[in-house]
Amino acid sequence: MAIVLGIDGGGTGTQAVVADVHGTVYAEVTVGPTNPNAVSREQLKATASHMFNQLKEQNGEAFDQVELVFAGMSGSGDSEKSRLVESVFAECLPNRHVIVANDAINALYAGTYGEPGIVQIAGTGSITYGINEEGKASRIGGWGYLFGDEGSGYAIGEAALRKVFHTHDRKTDAYNLVDQVSAYFQVDVVPDLVPAVYESSSPREKIASLSRVVFEAYDEKDPHATQIVEQAADDLARSINTMLNEHFQQHQTVILAGGLFKREDVLPELLKRRIPSSSRLSVLKREPVMGAIDAALKQLGG
Amino acid sequence: MAIVLGIDGGGTGTQAVVADVHGTVYAEVTVGPTNPNAVSREQLKATASHMFNQLKEQNGEAFDQVELVFAGMSGSGDSEKSRLVESVFAECLPNRHVIVANDAINALYAGTYGEPGIVQIAGTGSITYGINEEGKASRIGGWGYLFGDEGSGYAIGEAALRKVFHTHDRKTDAYNLVDQVSAYFQVDVVPDLVPAVYESSSPREKIASLSRVVFEAYDEKDPHATQIVEQAADDLARSINTMLNEHFQQHQTVILAGGLFKREDVLPELLKRRIPSSSRLSVLKREPVMGAIDAALKQLGG
Repeated sequence: MAIVLGIDGGGTGTQAVVADVHGTVYAEVTVGPTNPNAVSREQLKATASHMFNQLKEQNGEAFDQVELVFAGMSGSGDSEKSRLVESVFAECLPNRHVIVANDAINALYAGTYGEPGIVQIAGTGSITYGINEEGKASRIGGWGYLFGDEGSGYAIGEAALRKVFHTHDRKTDAYNLVDQVSAYFQVDVVPDLVPAVYESSSPREKIASLSRVVFEAYDEKDPHATQIVEQAADDLARSINTMLNEHFQQHQTVILAGGLFKREDVLPELLKRRIPSSSRLSVLKREPVMGAIDAALKQLGG
Repeated sequence: MAIVLGIDGGGTGTQAVVADVHGTVYAEVTVGPTNPNAVSREQLKATASHMFNQLKEQNGEAFDQVELVFAGMSGSGDSEKSRLVESVFAECLPNRHVIVANDAINALYAGTYGEPGIVQIAGTGSITYGINEEGKASRIGGWGYLFGDEGSGYAIGEAALRKVFHTHDRKTDAYNLVDQVSAYFQVDVVPDLVPAVYESSSPREKIASLSRVVFEAYDEKDPHATQIVEQAADDLARSINTMLNEHFQQHQTVILAGGLFKREDVLPELLKRRIPSSSRLSVLKREPVMGAIDAALKQLGG
């Protein structure tokens, strides 16, 4: 019976699981970041060695039977970074077949159990990723916060901050957001948000975390928060619909993954009205690393 | 006759001039960055010492007669940073009167020769700054690239990049911008822009520098470039007009300063149509550091 190793690698943490075709998990570990843009080759090597040693310690017998390693890695979109990760993993696991791919595949297959479909990921960043019936993969977005990542937590937080500064500059009247954002960052006046954001260790995450504040204001029917959230829903729906039209038939599975969909009554609800009803929209409940297991088994023809 | 010292401090370089009320320059030096957000207290101290020593070497007699030091410093908007710069300069110049203020004052007074008015600065970032007839200072914008800095080089470059990625994602058709931006960054395909920008030493400057590409496409009447440039003109005009309406009488001087106005046939021309004709719009030709001299003389009642 085929045993495989699945990895879900990210910029803050990495999950690895050894499992079989029945979903039986033999070993499971969470280690630090392995995004090749966030860590050096040496750090990546150390983290990977530690990760594989832990798995082997948990269940040496299963580990030795691993037939294939599938690693869905954030920050490995381009082939150069993928090759770097692949070579590091291969050094740690001589004579094993290692496949490194985009981490969006994990979230997709975790939702579809290895079947074709579309995944819309929206956390700090956003990406629309699909694999159709012919096995053709396609992406929209996911270019990072400097290029917008529409419908992402960052985009929502940035829109809120702009409204706050526009209110301060007498260009709009988002007083409610001014109060809530100021309270969230614990500042007394709007200009103090500048050092609060720029001097934080991760301005990107800090801005993205404002999406929670925006959702709360949305609950209170604040018109500015409503406009920001509906814009995000429009942007996400546009990407999903483009993907559907270009590469898919009707009756498609669309998986929603990432922190922005935890509030199921907000964006998932708004997306339902913007996506053809022939598509099944569902919020991902499984761990993305289990999608890496599905991807590995699929490679083995399972 | 009053002799003063004017400083224009920035994140890339700092100019200092010793001059008198007739505009006679006795000493002049350009040193490294003194933006307190970009350098440590120690670096600031070393750069300031070097700067003052150079001025003294050039003309010790004039230097010893300096009655007042006016430093318009970028990154000194909030009082805490201003106090830091003030204390460092005061350590270097015991028993001299040192005033530290927003560097927008330099550009304003360089244009108005110390008279009231409005300055619109647009380079990598943007800010609208005014001092009215009653001496009341006011600002709009200038919150930094993470919060938009509307009408700035960064905002224009970011808008161009979004159009490029939207074209790649089949959401728009800015093919001309795709070609020109790709050529500018020397990449073959759009996804390669991601590492080209993120891995540059200053993504912010790199994105802002794209405004040149946008202006060239604007010259060729590219509709996407036209839309971006006109949006920038609208945003800048909105800030200038808000400032005019809130704090100024008719017949106001509006100075345009910063790299984005070097192409006088683009934004300055578009702004003329968006600002009341009773206001005199002019592109700054003098060095901003000379505005610091004017500010210092004004403080002395000159």
